Amino acid sequence: MIQSINLHEDRLFSSDVTQRAIAKRLYKTVKDLPIVSPHGHTDPEWFAENRCFSNASDLLIKPDHYLLRMLFSQGITMAELGFDDGCNNAEQDPLKIWRVFAKHYYQFQGTPTRLWLDYVFKIVFDLEEELCCENADAYFWHITRCLQTDEFRPRELFEKFNIEVIATTESPLDDLRHHAKIAESGWKGKVITAFRPDNVVDPEYEGFEQNLTTLSNITKVNIDSFSGYLDSLKSRRLFFKKMGATSTDHGHLTARTLDLDSQSKEALYQKIRSQKFSSADADDFRAQMLTEMASMSIEDGLVMQIHPGVYRNHNELLFQRYGRDKGADIPLVSEYVENLRPLLNRYGCHPDFSLIIFTLDETCYARELAPLAGHYPALKLGPAWWFNDSPEGMARFRKQTTETAGFYNSVGFNDDTRAFLSIPARHDVARRVDCAYLAELVADHRITEVQAESILFELSYNLVKKAYLL
Amino acid sequence: MIQSINLHEDRLFSSDVTQRAIAKRLYKTVKDLPIVSPHGHTDPEWFAENRCFSNASDLLIKPDHYLLRMLFSQGITMAELGFDDGCNNAEQDPLKIWRVFAKHYYQFQGTPTRLWLDYVFKIVFDLEEELCCENADAYFWHITRCLQTDEFRPRELFEKFNIEVIATTESPLDDLRHHAKIAESGWKGKVITAFRPDNVVDPEYEGFEQNLTTLSNITKVNIDSFSGYLDSLKSRRLFFKKMGATSTDHGHLTARTLDLDSQSKEALYQKIRSQKFSSADADDFRAQMLTEMASMSIEDGLVMQIHPGVYRNHNELLFQRYGRDKGADIPLVSEYVENLRPLLNRYGCHPDFSLIIFTLDETCYARELAPLAGHYPALKLGPAWWFNDSPEGMARFRKQTTETAGFYNSVGFNDDTRAFLSIPARHDVARRVDCAYLAELVADHRITEVQAESILFELSYNLVKKAYLL
Amino acid sequence: MIQSINLHEDRLFSSDVTQRAIAKRLYKTVKDLPIVSPHGHTDPEWFAENRCFSNASDLLIKPDHYLLRMLFSQGITMAELGFDDGCNNAEQDPLKIWRVFAKHYYQFQGTPTRLWLDYVFKIVFDLEEELCCENADAYFWHITRCLQTDEFRPRELFEKFNIEVIATTESPLDDLRHHAKIAESGWKGKVITAFRPDNVVDPEYEGFEQNLTTLSNITKVNIDSFSGYLDSLKSRRLFFKKMGATSTDHGHLTARTLDLDSQSKEALYQKIRSQKFSSADADDFRAQMLTEMASMSIEDGLVMQIHPGVYRNHNELLFQRYGRDKGADIPLVSEYVENLRPLLNRYGCHPDFSLIIFTLDETCYARELAPLAGHYPALKLGPAWWFNDSPEGMARFRKQTTETAGFYNSVGFNDDTRAFLSIPARHDVARRVDCAYLAELVADHRITEVQAESILFELSYNLVKKAYLL
Repeated sequence: MIQSINLHEDRLFSSDVTQRAIAKRLYKTVKDLPIVSPHGHTDPEWFAENRCFSNASDLLIKPDHYLLRMLFSQGITMAELGFDDGCNNAEQDPLKIWRVFAKHYYQFQGTPTRLWLDYVFKIVFDLEEELCCENADAYFWHITRCLQTDEFRPRELFEKFNIEVIATTESPLDDLRHHAKIAESGWKGKVITAFRPDNVVDPEYEGFEQNLTTLSNITKVNIDSFSGYLDSLKSRRLFFKKMGATSTDHGHLTARTLDLDSQSKEALYQKIRSQKFSSADADDFRAQMLTEMASMSIEDGLVMQIHPGVYRNHNELLFQRYGRDKGADIPLVSEYVENLRPLLNRYGCHPDFSLIIFTLDETCYARELAPLAGHYPALKLGPAWWFNDSPEGMARFRKQTTETAGFYNSVGFNDDTRAFLSIPARHDVARRVDCAYLAELVADHRITEVQAESILFELSYNLVKKAYLL
Repeated sequence: MIQSINLHEDRLFSSDVTQRAIAKRLYKTVKDLPIVSPHGHTDPEWFAENRCFSNASDLLIKPDHYLLRMLFSQGITMAELGFDDGCNNAEQDPLKIWRVFAKHYYQFQGTPTRLWLDYVFKIVFDLEEELCCENADAYFWHITRCLQTDEFRPRELFEKFNIEVIATTESPLDDLRHHAKIAESGWKGKVITAFRPDNVVDPEYEGFEQNLTTLSNITKVNIDSFSGYLDSLKSRRLFFKKMGATSTDHGHLTARTLDLDSQSKEALYQKIRSQKFSSADADDFRAQMLTEMASMSIEDGLVMQIHPGVYRNHNELLFQRYGRDKGADIPLVSEYVENLRPLLNRYGCHPDFSLIIFTLDETCYARELAPLAGHYPALKLGPAWWFNDSPEGMARFRKQTTETAGFYNSVGFNDDTRAFLSIPARHDVARRVDCAYLAELVADHRITEVQAESILFELSYNLVKKAYLL
Repeated sequence: MIQSINLHEDRLFSSDVTQRAIAKRLYKTVKDLPIVSPHGHTDPEWFAENRCFSNASDLLIKPDHYLLRMLFSQGITMAELGFDDGCNNAEQDPLKIWRVFAKHYYQFQGTPTRLWLDYVFKIVFDLEEELCCENADAYFWHITRCLQTDEFRPRELFEKFNIEVIATTESPLDDLRHHAKIAESGWKGKVITAFRPDNVVDPEYEGFEQNLTTLSNITKVNIDSFSGYLDSLKSRRLFFKKMGATSTDHGHLTARTLDLDSQSKEALYQKIRSQKFSSADADDFRAQMLTEMASMSIEDGLVMQIHPGVYRNHNELLFQRYGRDKGADIPLVSEYVENLRPLLNRYGCHPDFSLIIFTLDETCYARELAPLAGHYPALKLGPAWWFNDSPEGMARFRKQTTETAGFYNSVGFNDDTRAFLSIPARHDVARRVDCAYLAELVADHRITEVQAESILFELSYNLVKKAYLL
């Protein structure tokens, strides 16, 4: 028998009657607040061109690495999901791809992907039945048909989703033409960029040398010296800022930072440029560049984010055949106390500096990150991220950081997603989890409900606006 | 006043009324399912010979390292527990050993040992009072007398416990005579072996060289070359498979794997055989052998298990005096992302390969193991193990792995025990903890009760049969 | 609107009705038990001189690193809090300091500091309103006036707080004059010392060589040889013991221990004394000295404590300007299995040895510390410490150690504080958290309420007295 979609109005609240009643009252105060999305990976072209999305599979399955990884782990091949490994064996029919997904949808039970998608199906597409083999075709056509209508265009969804502002992520080599077009269009939706310089600060990034040449050409700055290179980056940062950016983002393997003297920096830069550098040199350069970026943040006021600790493309064969972002990135042990010290000793107490730190290694929450954020004025804690962007993950974040760092050294929620349609679902989960957490504190008389209501507004709306200068 | 044994019918379910009601309904659906025990250390001789167990102390205390370690930590000497350190000071009277245990039984409050033993006392031996000094003798004699009766023989208990299949663990040098005898006996109980080659793949194992000679003699294969050595191992694997084995098990210090080229493998093997090898060579050899075993698994279809991360015999003096498995093994920090990569890059996507990974380092659950299992098709997560085979440990396993790996990349429960009488108690605890976990998900509206019931059947029975090919 | 202080009689108990009823019954049995405080940093001069405390800010804000760190993290400068960076810019007026604190008091919501202070305000000072800007001055004057009265002198508060015994911490170079004066005074309050030799066993401690000269002068022992040095330390230990000490405390960076032979020890000592030693030599020396201290503990009966794993003075600039203990210490990854092995292999089974281990790295609870404490007779687990001395931290400690180590390998609560007025609040939080934890075990039928009551008495009073020989 086909079941109804399970989207109970009290989902994610504790079943304890005292806690649930509090959580429900709290949730009412924030459920309709606008969405502030300061960090994510939606495509600005969507909002610039405002073309219809193509079909259910191309929009909801193929770009979603959460979906791909789970299906792949259960034996579904990339070809069945529409990806070509060079042998022309990829499934071409989006309906058939959708059927594969529908057949295995039960495997997502207990995961946040399931919570997000059920929300998308029911709230965004007004579907009532749980997705399964029997209704797969009907689902596909219903969603695909909706996507052809005006109300499902990117800008219309943006407005329907009550998004106050969304940030995309671009490299310094991007010309931000889509952002320019959005600005020129007169549309009132606020879509800003964020400065992500990995491809021009990591000597081991594919095409690094070529990227530097491009950087120099774009900025018309000679980058033969380290200071020229820095000037070139500063120039791009200012361009990004002019185009709306309020933050930078750094996806290094570790949070390692360095604070070398001028001579050593110049020598290291020349070594890197000579292309005769060791892996340790490259790591030193990345580490030094984080400190340089902190210095630039103090100058130009962009908020700095560091997202370390992921082994990218762990599955080499998959990477060679299908490329990045197919669900084969794996978190690593991370360390912040020694690694961040050079940067924090230099700038951690500077009143004009703001640094938001993320982790995929939850062991650092109580041991390293909450103690660091609970001391350094510049440091704030980014929310539970990626694999930890889930009800259990968010609850662990709060339970392991709040007692040492408080609420006011955290920065609200980031959806960090390219799955545009899931954004309201993700923010709704985050708000519900915060309601449940605060309701427990109220029920145990650790805080009052008056306090909880005020904290919840901070967590859902205010802290993120302050932290990202939005 | 002597208390009754505390074995409430709703034990381990949340006291939240909503959750408890759900848990009770769920539990009813699985409590009488047969026990599938794919990994353990019971002695096949018990089932081959079907002799009566001797007495309460020899059966329940002396072989149980959980019991020994706690009593030892509280100042009880090994001699008081019946172990001889070479000075002829061991207590010989099992009744006196039992009294020591009874006197300190309160120290197990809050531990899983206590849950298991109370179950054994009440359900298996029909005792009503909580064990204490006052009733120690009565307990001892009641249990010991029971053990002399036919219905407490190994085969009769096996049937009474509703065991569908149990796996023991043997080394490649074992002739599996007990398994042969069981097969020939016509008894319908299914007792299979598992292939555990640590003593012939770890160059630092006691007697490694002698073990290799024995291996060569048994298999009549010349092992002077690496390929001969591999052939010899393949031959034993096939023998084990013929005798019922469906899996191999590998108890390495770490999960490190290597994937060397043929020439390097041969050179490494010759170095190991020359007995002039360093500790790093030995580690390389173990690492390479995991990859070789994966290759053999693909050929012969045996499921591969890796149980890494234990510092064996941490207490040197205790080891010298009393030997292995006396409760002095201590978990270590473990790492899987870098360590498993060579093996996973070679075979992790092979459709005929199945690898089950265990850990004693819970920090790897959310950070490494769930992300790996949620991507690689070959990889599944073994259950909470050893020190974590406990209500809190199992709950942490589910809460830290499910959101990323789902339920279908896990493999049900392993009891991993030599304490035969505790097997029903252990499976009952596991089922109850899963009921409590699922009941919470249902109560919070993260899954429906219909879904929970279906998942629970998988966790209690179906996944283990599929994962271990039983 | 000004709120009342939130100090509900059932705070920190679960809101589950079953659990709360049990917790309330349990709490009644321990809430009025005397406070045993075996490890802390109150100033013995307070009890020797029994002078009035000066004012609210000097007593409650300036010495409390928990308070300083949170306010600093939120942008308050050290000068605003009354600390001079050498530029004569420190706020001198304690009332103005208090106002800054009051204005930011909401930032402590959700932290244990808030729980402790609300208790101090309401229970110790009989205040009713929640502290805020509006009542900051009234608060300051009320507290400051109280402090001038006889009933708020140190000895009177000690008695009012129902403290049975409190330990302070002194270095071997301390003459313990305050303890002598207390003893001579005839006051019945029991204030003992503890032996903390970091400044004479850590070659990298500021002034180490000078400290050794002082040590030699005080003890009149020639310390040119290692054995002379050890004799000198033994002599101080005996003096401390005579003055009431029952324990030693060791605040090393790691838990690393060594067990060198006599010749190596002498050579290492001479190298250290020559002042031509490397950082590795210093680490070896600290490691060896832990083992020496264990040996001395067996001789003189002092219980040994190790508190490792803190990066002291992480913020270099803050340290240079304002010195130690200003809230800039950060926990580090810790390791116990390899590190403690030399010491444990030497003395871990000695019946006269008692070692209490603390950690700030919670990942070690289930993986390393509970397994070690659940085996070695000498080893006991210190309670959740410092950053983890909080409701969530204590709950994690119990949930991650009890199943493997039981209750009887733990040692009750330590307040570890210099914030004298918060001591009853801290013990009250610890007792409540234990009640909540045990209530859950009872409600889930893992233990009986009779058992819980007996365990609770151990956790609240008896274990600490036994473990610290009080």
